[in-house]
Amino acid sequence: MITPLDQFSQACLPAIEAELRRAVAPAGGPDLEELHGMLAYHLGWEGPGAGANASGKRIRPLLVLLSCAAAGGDWQAALPAAAAIELIHNFSLIHDDIQDNSELRRGRPTVWVKWGIPQAINAGDAMFTLAHLSILRLQDTVSAGIALQAAGILQQTCLELTQGQYRDISYENRYDLTIDDYWPMICGKTAALIAASAEIGALAAQAGQEVCSAYQTFGNALGLAFQAQDDLLGIWGDSALTGKSAESDLVTGKKSLPVLYGLSQKGWFATRWHMAPITPQDVTLLARQLEIEGARQYTQAKADELTEQALKALQSANPQGEAGQALVELANWLLGRNS
Amino acid sequence: MITPLDQFSQACLPAIEAELRRAVAPAGGPDLEELHGMLAYHLGWEGPGAGANASGKRIRPLLVLLSCAAAGGDWQAALPAAAAIELIHNFSLIHDDIQDNSELRRGRPTVWVKWGIPQAINAGDAMFTLAHLSILRLQDTVSAGIALQAAGILQQTCLELTQGQYRDISYENRYDLTIDDYWPMICGKTAALIAASAEIGALAAQAGQEVCSAYQTFGNALGLAFQAQDDLLGIWGDSALTGKSAESDLVTGKKSLPVLYGLSQKGWFATRWHMAPITPQDVTLLARQLEIEGARQYTQAKADELTEQALKALQSANPQGEAGQALVELANWLLGRNS
Repeated sequence: MITPLDQFSQACLPAIEAELRRAVAPAGGPDLEELHGMLAYHLGWEGPGAGANASGKRIRPLLVLLSCAAAGGDWQAALPAAAAIELIHNFSLIHDDIQDNSELRRGRPTVWVKWGIPQAINAGDAMFTLAHLSILRLQDTVSAGIALQAAGILQQTCLELTQGQYRDISYENRYDLTIDDYWPMICGKTAALIAASAEIGALAAQAGQEVCSAYQTFGNALGLAFQAQDDLLGIWGDSALTGKSAESDLVTGKKSLPVLYGLSQKGWFATRWHMAPITPQDVTLLARQLEIEGARQYTQAKADELTEQALKALQSANPQGEAGQALVELANWLLGRNS
Repeated sequence: MITPLDQFSQACLPAIEAELRRAVAPAGGPDLEELHGMLAYHLGWEGPGAGANASGKRIRPLLVLLSCAAAGGDWQAALPAAAAIELIHNFSLIHDDIQDNSELRRGRPTVWVKWGIPQAINAGDAMFTLAHLSILRLQDTVSAGIALQAAGILQQTCLELTQGQYRDISYENRYDLTIDDYWPMICGKTAALIAASAEIGALAAQAGQEVCSAYQTFGNALGLAFQAQDDLLGIWGDSALTGKSAESDLVTGKKSLPVLYGLSQKGWFATRWHMAPITPQDVTLLARQLEIEGARQYTQAKADELTEQALKALQSANPQGEAGQALVELANWLLGRNS
């Protein structure tokens, strides 16, 4: 059965790629092929392993376009914003990979591994700039006023991203973190850009302030729910518990929601966590202990609560037609639920 | 004698600092003091050695305000643009210092030395974002249309910055460079932002396209002339030849205009350059050899020619009143000439 989300994806995803290529083109030029190549590589278009698996799922730009259509607009008009948001997401990944010392991204060597840290920092900066140039193109597809508003929202969002990133990096050396430290980090790192995707989509449809705000609330709750869900899978998901236990959040030391909950319980898990790094061999036992101490139930309850909030906010925005259905479908798919 | 530049500086410089503080404030907040502190430190406001010497000269924002006033505008209206340009300049320095592995900036430890590379990359990103947020505030001080135009110019300029930076980094490992490789790098790294300063200043005065374009040409030639002059001093300036010969561009290996000229002569200098790194002891001899091969004269002629172009472009913009005089004075001062 072809669902509304399938239908929209079929039309939107190629348009997103085309708009991204258009947005990234100014980084080219006779002696700038290599700079353009770094961006094209990171976006999954070039180099060994290029293709859909290397590109990421383009969820944020899809959210922009669906929100625009569901708010009564023409999704094609929102394409410059969709490309801008995907470029912001990818700029942050290029810099993240340097900051986290990550050598692989989507199964391929990261930009800094291939071109060195100086060029990778600069490639991220170039992608950041291209995002800002792209969003301004809303003045051609919608209006100057909307372009200015959207640019303001996007830039405020980027500030929140850097604030979330600051928290994330500074948490690495802190042993006194509690659950209260979790939400401000995740709001900035994950939810802000998803919230902006939905809000700017509605804005590109020239929806009123109240509707835009409902889309923003929807995106924010969706982002938080997604992260809580992702944190759950990072410990109790199949691949975290079995074959790839080295990738378990328990081993990488990620300050995820279940971990911070476990630490705040000051029980056996917390004692073990503070004692020494957790090895892949410990993963099964520690995951069970964390569950016994209530972290899994707590995280699931939070994810459910936020999902509820997201869907309620979306409902209040009164999303229209098949795009509205596709949006609900996308939210449910993101949260690993059958709609 | 108090000159027009003195007078304007006295009024403008405190206003620039106030606007910068306003633009950087959103990076603060209860748990974000340290992030804000990194930006305040880099801007010369906080930490050991804080003060005028640690702040840089604020030449670019001054150029924005003087260009605005000389084009018939109220310089106060251009303050958000002046702050934006200074923040872009400083964002690029924070990232530059990581890329160049520079441990000192204006006599103080660089941001990455104090807070580590991950936080320094992120602090640069935050400053970049705050710049974009600042320029949008032109919609309050001038108009929405001007804000949108100015944001477009600024972002195009940022793209040129990253292109210049890409060239600069990639030149490090190249031994086949010629003078033709110099200008594209310097256009991006130095001239683009100075050109944007003058152009956006005129734009904030709501000057016509032709006048804005003349200011842009003025700023571009001024930036190139300044760089050629700076390159000259980097080899034949007092401090490069005497006490601080370790800082001579010959020792740091900078691909400056005289060096690239010398290399293209394929003479004794080029042979020595390719043989082994140049030590402080070699500096006097090599600088003399480079002069004999014509590099000093060539560079001086280029600087003079570009200075001529800059002043001619400024004249054609018909700068008005004392601000116009101050602008000529600033250009001459920057180029080390007595006006």
